[in-house]
Amino acid sequence: MSVTDELLANAERYAATFDKGALPLPPAKHVAVVACMDARLNPYGILGLSEGDAHVIRNAGGVVTADELRSLAISQRLLGTTEIILIHHTDCGMLTFTDDDFRSGIEREVGIRPPWAAEAFTDLDADVRQSVRRIQADPFIPVKDSVRGFVYEVETGKLREVR
Amino acid sequence: MSVTDELLANAERYAATFDKGALPLPPAKHVAVVACMDARLNPYGILGLSEGDAHVIRNAGGVVTADELRSLAISQRLLGTTEIILIHHTDCGMLTFTDDDFRSGIEREVGIRPPWAAEAFTDLDADVRQSVRRIQADPFIPVKDSVRGFVYEVETGKLREVR
Repeated sequence: MSVTDELLANAERYAATFDKGALPLPPAKHVAVVACMDARLNPYGILGLSEGDAHVIRNAGGVVTADELRSLAISQRLLGTTEIILIHHTDCGMLTFTDDDFRSGIEREVGIRPPWAAEAFTDLDADVRQSVRRIQADPFIPVKDSVRGFVYEVETGKLREVR
Repeated sequence: MSVTDELLANAERYAATFDKGALPLPPAKHVAVVACMDARLNPYGILGLSEGDAHVIRNAGGVVTADELRSLAISQRLLGTTEIILIHHTDCGMLTFTDDDFRSGIEREVGIRPPWAAEAFTDLDADVRQSVRRIQADPFIPVKDSVRGFVYEVETGKLREVR
């Protein structure tokens, strides 16, 4: 049995006691979260989110690339979110390599250099600020009054604001 | 008080009882989930995931674009995941508009046409298959033995596999 099959058994249990079938499409709290994909970072637990509350956008690093700008534009323009919460975290995998090394390693193995930047970084707080600035500079996201960035500490469970 | 401030108060409560400070960086279940950002789709609840279990990648639609391929390459190559679970869902916002209309509307308002495709779709199952195929066709993701796609039913809580 694969891990996927094991998780599908969990999904059957979730459906068996499901009672949230009438929630509306727009997020109740009008918030979009952009966070790293890291397994230890659970936005629902940390922020106390429940089904229906917020859009959750995640990728390697919690960085803001074209796809996050697309998702945020859709989130605000079509589904009425107005606040953005960015979350990076300590002990992030993105701190352990450089873009050049990662892409050159793939090129050596596969024979093709990836067309994307890996988005690795060396300074957590600086990359949170970089992500905030990418949102502030984007012409397609209409509401930028509340774009706040944070570092989640995987060692302590604490969320620290980056200013 | 903004909603962000309200969620930060939740984060303080999460940290106060935090007991997961020793979890390793690589996901324990070696799984990466790619799901829609929709507020009603909670991958932790549905799949029974806990902190430390799996990478969770999310965007508008749960579609696979360059940034998801980047995240999956990092997930597999640097952090050892080997199974991929894709989740779209019923009543998705991406079913309610067309790329052309969304991008033309922004162009009329802002004066600039977005450089990205909005990735709207008209057929849920077909778009799940499209996302699976984009992963299967990617040269930088090494492990493709278990790439399975699903539709989550927001009305019933059920997860249905797309074949």
